[in-house]
Amino acid sequence: MALSHLSLSTVLHVAEVAGILAFAVSGFVEARNKEMDWVGVFTVAFITAFGGGALRDILLDRRPLFWVEHQEYPIMIFVLTLLAFPLRRRILPVAAEKTIIVADALGLGLFSVNGASLALEMGMPMFVSAMMGVITGIFGGVLRDVLCNQIPMVFRRGQLYATCSFAGCWVFLLLNWLQAGQSAALAAGVASTFIMRILAVRFNLILPDPEKD
Amino acid sequence: MALSHLSLSTVLHVAEVAGILAFAVSGFVEARNKEMDWVGVFTVAFITAFGGGALRDILLDRRPLFWVEHQEYPIMIFVLTLLAFPLRRRILPVAAEKTIIVADALGLGLFSVNGASLALEMGMPMFVSAMMGVITGIFGGVLRDVLCNQIPMVFRRGQLYATCSFAGCWVFLLLNWLQAGQSAALAAGVASTFIMRILAVRFNLILPDPEKD
Amino acid sequence: MALSHLSLSTVLHVAEVAGILAFAVSGFVEARNKEMDWVGVFTVAFITAFGGGALRDILLDRRPLFWVEHQEYPIMIFVLTLLAFPLRRRILPVAAEKTIIVADALGLGLFSVNGASLALEMGMPMFVSAMMGVITGIFGGVLRDVLCNQIPMVFRRGQLYATCSFAGCWVFLLLNWLQAGQSAALAAGVASTFIMRILAVRFNLILPDPEKD
Repeated sequence: MALSHLSLSTVLHVAEVAGILAFAVSGFVEARNKEMDWVGVFTVAFITAFGGGALRDILLDRRPLFWVEHQEYPIMIFVLTLLAFPLRRRILPVAAEKTIIVADALGLGLFSVNGASLALEMGMPMFVSAMMGVITGIFGGVLRDVLCNQIPMVFRRGQLYATCSFAGCWVFLLLNWLQAGQSAALAAGVASTFIMRILAVRFNLILPDPEKD
Repeated sequence: MALSHLSLSTVLHVAEVAGILAFAVSGFVEARNKEMDWVGVFTVAFITAFGGGALRDILLDRRPLFWVEHQEYPIMIFVLTLLAFPLRRRILPVAAEKTIIVADALGLGLFSVNGASLALEMGMPMFVSAMMGVITGIFGGVLRDVLCNQIPMVFRRGQLYATCSFAGCWVFLLLNWLQAGQSAALAAGVASTFIMRILAVRFNLILPDPEKD
Repeated sequence: MALSHLSLSTVLHVAEVAGILAFAVSGFVEARNKEMDWVGVFTVAFITAFGGGALRDILLDRRPLFWVEHQEYPIMIFVLTLLAFPLRRRILPVAAEKTIIVADALGLGLFSVNGASLALEMGMPMFVSAMMGVITGIFGGVLRDVLCNQIPMVFRRGQLYATCSFAGCWVFLLLNWLQAGQSAALAAGVASTFIMRILAVRFNLILPDPEKD
């Protein structure tokens, strides 16, 4: 039916925008914590949202970059940064934290599996494709933290994040290798990352540290 | 007349060299503040001068890079670093600060508008071209600060810098869109950035911060 | 004889693996000093080993990247990180420090001269080729330090490191320019870097600082 067709494409698009926004918000928040001005806040929000994908495309030599082809996304972040700046205390209350975690988990899943899929399409071997997926998913945040002059959060001991991205990429890669069909493999990969990340936050799952535990 | 023809090309070349030198000097000074040795001072000076253009070219997939094509510039910085190192206290007294601010403002204008123009020539849309201009103008300094382990100065609240670059790029882009002629648009863009930056330093103009003001 | 033929290729391969491992170990150690978890330790070890070569290839627009073409190396580092993590205190005692310095010096020589040679083959001028060699040799360590939120060690005053890389690249470039034969020039370049670095560590050679000495 028209409805179901519409809804699939709409769901994907909404999820993509939600993921980009969640990533941008995390950049926005961290930049403000560092007392950056408008220029810093926009740049850090922008790089958090698109840095991972841009790095992947540079490593794989793909052009044009996503945000160059889709000018509307940087413009969206530019406008939202302008609007959000004065309203920060009102639009980012503690109550919204859960929404951001869910949207961020969605973004992590979508970006990671999409990155692995693009690498695979370009003929990369499986381990490299998984790495490209993880780079797509986490390096926006790594660059955000480097620009904010702190050790990348994703490298410090905390609730599973890169691990969820890595696991989800392998779910996608293995299903693809088993010829499960592109859409099913993609959906399973994104869902695995998303669910694993939500469980990690909910149950405070962290990687073991053999020197401490 | 031969004189006027000579002077235009000479002025442009002198301005370019002045801008590169000003950027390199800011890298030199910051690297020395961090007690770096010769290797660090040269590398940081070099990256401050050419990092913004190199990043733009990587994002746009343009090669060869400017400094690869113009070997004389890295050699110039290499030699000047060697010479300047022992003489630092004598060649960078407070009296020279104004010269550096003027040369830096010139470099900011030239690099930004040139970056926007190159992006436009490669078929980029206008907002992306403006971003490429700003990246060309400011990311040398951003990389300098990342290598010196501090939050990029241009992201902190201070006298307008990236904003001048952004404004100048739009002056160029709009005049170009109005078909004002390439040279006129370029000159107006560079001049806008330059004048705005000088005014920002002179009158201590900074972006408003809605949470503080 | 088969033996000598075998041994040359084997020696080169063993040296390459030793160099990669030494670089990865230095990333591993620094990441652990910063209390990073498995994700951080692997990422930093990986970037220390391959970051310099990847940056050179991005600057020169060469693809595929070395570690993409040789998937076995990232997998090797991945597995070793998993194994080494719990055993760190036992496998990295002070006694092993000398081994690591020797392997690191070997890696520095091989990576630097190889980088200069690749740049030269792509038609780069000599000074740029030397810079590409140094970038290949030292930027893995620079990126390691940036991710670990500290000023790059190679920029701070200490036993000659980048200088050995630069000198070795020029030995290679000059012998090559004198048409000394590719293998001889390569070997001499690697040996120069290696010996100079070992001497620098042994006799504590550092660059002079005119403001202090």
